[in-house]
Amino acid sequence: MEDELLLMLPGPVPLPERVRAVMARQAINHRGAEFGNAYADIVRVLKGLFGTKNNPLVISGSGTAGMEAAVANFGKGRKMAHLINGKFGERMYTIGQRYASEARPIESDWGTPLNLESLKSALEDGCEVVTMVHNETSAGILNPAGEVGKICRKYDALFIMDGVTSIGGDQVLADDWGVDVAVVGSQKCLAAPAGLAAVSVSDRAWDRAVKNPPYYLDLPAYKKNAAKDPMETPYTPAVPLFLALREACLIIEEEGVDKRIARHHRMAGAVRKAVHAWGIDMFPKTDSLHQYSNTVTAACIPAGSNDKDFRGVVKKLGIQIAGGQDHLKDKIFRIGHMGAVSAPELLATLAATEYAVRKTGHQVLESGVMAAAEDLG
Amino acid sequence: MEDELLLMLPGPVPLPERVRAVMARQAINHRGAEFGNAYADIVRVLKGLFGTKNNPLVISGSGTAGMEAAVANFGKGRKMAHLINGKFGERMYTIGQRYASEARPIESDWGTPLNLESLKSALEDGCEVVTMVHNETSAGILNPAGEVGKICRKYDALFIMDGVTSIGGDQVLADDWGVDVAVVGSQKCLAAPAGLAAVSVSDRAWDRAVKNPPYYLDLPAYKKNAAKDPMETPYTPAVPLFLALREACLIIEEEGVDKRIARHHRMAGAVRKAVHAWGIDMFPKTDSLHQYSNTVTAACIPAGSNDKDFRGVVKKLGIQIAGGQDHLKDKIFRIGHMGAVSAPELLATLAATEYAVRKTGHQVLESGVMAAAEDLG
Repeated sequence: MEDELLLMLPGPVPLPERVRAVMARQAINHRGAEFGNAYADIVRVLKGLFGTKNNPLVISGSGTAGMEAAVANFGKGRKMAHLINGKFGERMYTIGQRYASEARPIESDWGTPLNLESLKSALEDGCEVVTMVHNETSAGILNPAGEVGKICRKYDALFIMDGVTSIGGDQVLADDWGVDVAVVGSQKCLAAPAGLAAVSVSDRAWDRAVKNPPYYLDLPAYKKNAAKDPMETPYTPAVPLFLALREACLIIEEEGVDKRIARHHRMAGAVRKAVHAWGIDMFPKTDSLHQYSNTVTAACIPAGSNDKDFRGVVKKLGIQIAGGQDHLKDKIFRIGHMGAVSAPELLATLAATEYAVRKTGHQVLESGVMAAAEDLG
Repeated sequence: MEDELLLMLPGPVPLPERVRAVMARQAINHRGAEFGNAYADIVRVLKGLFGTKNNPLVISGSGTAGMEAAVANFGKGRKMAHLINGKFGERMYTIGQRYASEARPIESDWGTPLNLESLKSALEDGCEVVTMVHNETSAGILNPAGEVGKICRKYDALFIMDGVTSIGGDQVLADDWGVDVAVVGSQKCLAAPAGLAAVSVSDRAWDRAVKNPPYYLDLPAYKKNAAKDPMETPYTPAVPLFLALREACLIIEEEGVDKRIARHHRMAGAVRKAVHAWGIDMFPKTDSLHQYSNTVTAACIPAGSNDKDFRGVVKKLGIQIAGGQDHLKDKIFRIGHMGAVSAPELLATLAATEYAVRKTGHQVLESGVMAAAEDLG
């Protein structure tokens, strides 16, 4: 049954039982100590994951709501530059077009390195706000946030980073990198259910907050309410999701941030070993600054097959992996390895995927499952 | 412990076990048949509760997000008139100020009848969009939606109705009343957890939708994705909340809409009987068009007491009722009787409240608890 599929997607991800169980409790008042304490726990853990001294603010909405909050509160009426090398970079540009006085796309092909020279030109031309997707899941590429942060600081531009699928799974050092606004979604590396976004904001960005952003995404209102004791949100929050995210954060704290990131790196390494063993191509093109994503791997579907057939074989074995989005449909498949998953889920996924690879008629070089097992063992 | 309080608030409300339990299940893909079927169930039931032929669209966000979606998609750049007789009417006006070319407040004192003559003048002056809160929980008053709808139609204005705390608990006939856009929140009369809003839109309103609303609240994008098979949302939805709302909707369907509304009326009637027996004043001032709310009752705290003391006595008995908001703090208390609650919760609440009334030194005329029991029995 579909509802029993193991989700190895770039979100949503399988949820630990503790995280799910806490949602089944009776409703609580969202303007009381218990809710405030849950919010405070979330903030304490997220600060470490964001790599910031600033308290992330939690919005009841998807990662997209967090992205829009960033653009609306800091980019409205300004010249914005949008680095694009995948679907979510494009989405940032689309949002920018609704707010910026001028939204400039700085496009590379999906999965290829960002064009940092064009970024510099845009900043020379007066762009004041830059957006970048840190981990571009549509293409499986990790973009160089530290490098982009340095360039933004040089030109005194604000730097908005979509960390939706990196924060909590890969290293993020928002303050050190010069990230002014960072955003994460709950249903990705944090292994919480979908429906919450968290946004951290630097002092420098607060000083430049615009007036009259959308009411529901008014970050100064979130800041004001988070400063209360007990902590609050400006509008009724999605209480079960806050309780679940708090539990997910406590699990992260118990595992330890460094260990968690190391686990994600280990899993990503093992998937790459498998892809290599199969003799098929990774999709993204990396360089000295760009790396393969450590939370999702994008590789090419062997010639002669298509998305439906390829992923259908994997699905019949009870596992859902992702296909390519938009023009990459039928060209790539993507395996999410973010959140709480570890060796068992990964080995099952690689076994099912290897079977699908073999069924296309592609001659694998060697067993990817064994290569991954050796790597993880 | 606070987390065990019986919440008799105008939302959040106690959740039936079935609604809570479904959130504890494993994550599912939000672009699949199971999610789509859940969304379809929600829409089928909500249509009946809204009294509309149009399919409500569900947003992952609070009722406020739904209100803003209404104003942003249909009021942006237009002259808006905002009927106000309580806190949520004020909020609509605040949101209107962020979007309208001119936002005109039509104010009455909280809990007093709306000024429909001023509304007509505003429409004569060219206001194109009107907002009204159907059930104003801050004051416990039910505003005359049918009457306002008639006036709006006469002037060909769009009518946006906040049904956040009426839909699912009191009669709403959006299409018959000429309501163009109606909004409900999940955590009120529907007895689902907080975090979702649903918005219905008339054909007339779709024809007048503005360009470039906020990206996250872009109702045409929700419409487009809801038309897919299986149904989808434009951005990742809060999946556990959709599953919970579906379960809440199935419970409503099992109870039957008419029976559910009759139950709310019966409970509201019993609370009013108790208030009358205590010899204290109801807060709102009704007239032939305005009625007491059937989902929350607002009454005056006896002279000499205050909010903290009064509600503290009730809380010590394990029950949380609401106080007055803003300038009504220390003046009124509010008992929510919406959602799944019935006689037992109500009798407990009235017993605790009567004890608090007596503790203020106020001489009750007779037992409110017995008056309510007789009414309910």
